[in-house]
Amino acid sequence: MTQNTVEKTPVTLLGLGAMGTALARTWLAAGHPLTVWNRTPARATALAAEGARVADSAAEAVTANTLIVACLLDDASVDEVLADTDLADRDLVNLTTSTPAQARARAEWARERGARYLDGGIMAVPPMIGVPEAGGYVFYSGSRELFERHRETLAVPAGTTYVGEDAGFAALHDVALLSAMYGMFAGAAHAFALIRKEDIDPAALAPLLADWLVAMAPAVYRTADQLRSGDYTKGVVSDLAMQVAGTPTFLNTAEQQGVSPELLSPYFELMRRRLAEGSGEEDLTGVIDLLVH
Amino acid sequence: MTQNTVEKTPVTLLGLGAMGTALARTWLAAGHPLTVWNRTPARATALAAEGARVADSAAEAVTANTLIVACLLDDASVDEVLADTDLADRDLVNLTTSTPAQARARAEWARERGARYLDGGIMAVPPMIGVPEAGGYVFYSGSRELFERHRETLAVPAGTTYVGEDAGFAALHDVALLSAMYGMFAGAAHAFALIRKEDIDPAALAPLLADWLVAMAPAVYRTADQLRSGDYTKGVVSDLAMQVAGTPTFLNTAEQQGVSPELLSPYFELMRRRLAEGSGEEDLTGVIDLLVH
Ligand SMILES: NC(=O)c1ccc[n+]([C@@H]2O[C@H](COP(=O)([O-])OP(=O)(O)OC[C@H]3O[C@@H](n4cnc5c(N)ncnc54)[C@H](OP(=O)(O)O)[C@@H]3O)[C@@H](O)[C@H]2O)c1
Ligand SMILES: NC(=O)c1ccc[n+]([C@@H]2O[C@H](COP(=O)([O-])OP(=O)(O)OC[C@H]3O[C@@H](n4cnc5c(N)ncnc54)[C@H](OP(=O)(O)O)[C@@H]3O)[C@@H](O)[C@H]2O)c1
Repeated sequence: MTQNTVEKTPVTLLGLGAMGTALARTWLAAGHPLTVWNRTPARATALAAEGARVADSAAEAVTANTLIVACLLDDASVDEVLADTDLADRDLVNLTTSTPAQARARAEWARERGARYLDGGIMAVPPMIGVPEAGGYVFYSGSRELFERHRETLAVPAGTTYVGEDAGFAALHDVALLSAMYGMFAGAAHAFALIRKEDIDPAALAPLLADWLVAMAPAVYRTADQLRSGDYTKGVVSDLAMQVAGTPTFLNTAEQQGVSPELLSPYFELMRRRLAEGSGEEDLTGVIDLLVH
Repeated sequence: MTQNTVEKTPVTLLGLGAMGTALARTWLAAGHPLTVWNRTPARATALAAEGARVADSAAEAVTANTLIVACLLDDASVDEVLADTDLADRDLVNLTTSTPAQARARAEWARERGARYLDGGIMAVPPMIGVPEAGGYVFYSGSRELFERHRETLAVPAGTTYVGEDAGFAALHDVALLSAMYGMFAGAAHAFALIRKEDIDPAALAPLLADWLVAMAPAVYRTADQLRSGDYTKGVVSDLAMQVAGTPTFLNTAEQQGVSPELLSPYFELMRRRLAEGSGEEDLTGVIDLLVH
C-alpha cells in the first residue's frame, strides 16, 4: 500500500453555483485543502460537510490561500466579489465566462492589484466536471508561469488547454467553439423542422444526422489550411459555383415543408455574394472574409 | 482460386458527369455489364475503353437493360433525357438530386409510363464512391420491392439506406442532412472569423473546433427524444433561460473582433422568442416549432 505524501495545493474557490460546486467536489475528492465562499451562504453547507472550510467573506477567503479560483456568474459579479479583497501576491484564476476584452481588462486590473492572472473558459457542463472520459476541458490564457505552476491542481476538475499569454485568448477560443456549436444546432434545428410534419421518427433521423455532422466536421481542417495559405481553391471538393447552384433545392424543400429559411439563408446569401465576386472555383472559405470588417 | 459464377445485374447509366463517371467505374470494376449514355458523347470515351457499352441515344440505353440509373444534373434534365424513352417495365433508379416534391412527381410520372421507381439522394462526393471506408452512402425511397431486388447492385458504389415508401423521403433526408451541415459550416465560418485578426493559427483552432463539434453533435439524440415526447425539458443540461442570458457574450465578442453577427443572430433571435413564450426551463428544442408554419 502506497501513501501519497505530496501536499496538495490549497485552493480558495469563490462562487458555488452549479459549476463552482462541481469544481469544489473534485478538489475535495482529490485531497486539496479547500476554502470556499459564496454570496448565498446556504450553498456552502453541503461542501462544509464534505470537508471544505467556509469563509465568512470573500476577503477572508482570499487571505486564506495563494491560489484563488473565481467561478461567478459574469464579469460584473467578479468585480463586486473581489472589490474589497487584498489580491497582492495572489494567483488569480478566473473561470467566469467573459468576453476577450473583459478578460484582458481583468488581467490588467489584477496586475494593478499585485496579483498574477490566468483566465479560463470552461468547455464543459457541470456533470462533465471530474469525469475525464466526458472529455470536458478548460481553455487557459494569460500568465504561462501561473499556468505551469498550478497545472496539476487545475487538471483535477477537467482537462487543461493553454492557448497563449494574451489573457483574452481563452475567452476567444471558448466563444469561437460555442458559436460554431450554435451554428451546428441551428442547422440541426432546421433539419428536424423539415421532417416535423412527415411520418418520420425524429429518433430515426438523429443517428443519421449525428453521424453526418461528425463525418463533415473535419472539413474545418481544410478551411484552416486554405486560410493559412490564402489559396481558397486548395483541395476543394465541391466548388462554390456548384454549391450555390444547389441552394434552390434547399430553399425550395424548406418552402415545401413549411419551414422558414431564416437559419439557412444568411449563409447562402454570403455564398452568393462571394460567388458574385468571381470566386466560383473556390471552396466556401471566402465567406469568412465577408464576415470580418 | 475461386471464380464467381453468379451473373451480375446489367446496368444502364444515364449521365456521365463527375458523379455518374464515378458510379460507372465501380460497376465496371465489380463486373456488372454496363451500358452508358451521356449528352456529350466525349465523356463516355474513357469508360468505353474500360469495358462499358456506349449507347447512341438515351432511348437505346433504356432498351438495353431493365435496371436504369439516372444521375443527371437536375430534375429538368431527367425530364429531357427520358422524354423519348420507353420506360415500360423498367426499374428506374433516379440518383439525380431533387426536392421531395420533384421526387414524388417523378415517381408518379414513372408509374404512368409503366416503370417501377426508386429515388436516391447521394450522401457522398465522387472521390468517396467505391471507397467503403470513406463512409459515403445513398438514401433510397420509393418502391421497397425495387430496393430489395437491386440492393446488391446498388451497394456496389456506396452504402445504401432505405428510408421509406414515400418517394420524396430520400430527397428529404438528403436535404435535411446537408442543411444541418451548412449550419455547422456557418458556425465554423463565424469561429474562424473571430480569430482572423489575432495571432492565432487557424490550423491550431481546427482540431479544437472539429473535436468540439464532434463532441456536441450527439445533442441531436436528446433533441429527437424531446420532440418525440413533446417534453422539451427532458434531460435538459443548460436551460433556455441560461443560454439566452449567455448570448450577449457571443454577440459582444463578435463586435469586439469586428465580425458580423449575421450567421449567429437569427438562431439567438429564435431562442429569445421562445424564451419570451415562457419556456425558460426548456432545452433549445422549442426553436424547431418556431421554424415550422
Ligand atoms: N453551468 C454551465 O453549464 C457552465 C458551463 C461553462 C461555463 N460556465 C460558467 O461558469 C460560471 C458559473 O456558472 P454556474 O453555472 O455556476 O452559474 P450559477 O449556477 O448561476 O451560479 C452563479 C454564481 O455566481 C454567484 N453570483 C452571481 N452574482 C453575484 C454577485 N453579484 N455577487 C456575488 N456572487 C454572485 C452566485 O451566487 P449566489 O449563490 O449567491 O446566487 C453563484 O455562486 C459562469 O460564468 C458560467 O458562464 C457555466
Ligand atoms: N458531385 C457531387 O459532389 C455530388 C454529390 C451528391 C450528389 N450529386 C448529384 O449527382 C447528380 C450529378 O452530379 P455531377 O456531379 O455528376 O454533375 P456534373 O458533373 O455537372 O454532370 C452533370 C451531368 O448531367 C448532364 N446533363 C445536364 N443537363 C442535361 C440535359 N439538359 N440533358 C442531358 N444531360 C444533361 C451532363 O451532361 P453533359 O456532360 O452533356 O453536360 C452531365 O452528364 C446531380 O444531381 C448532383 O446534385 C453530386
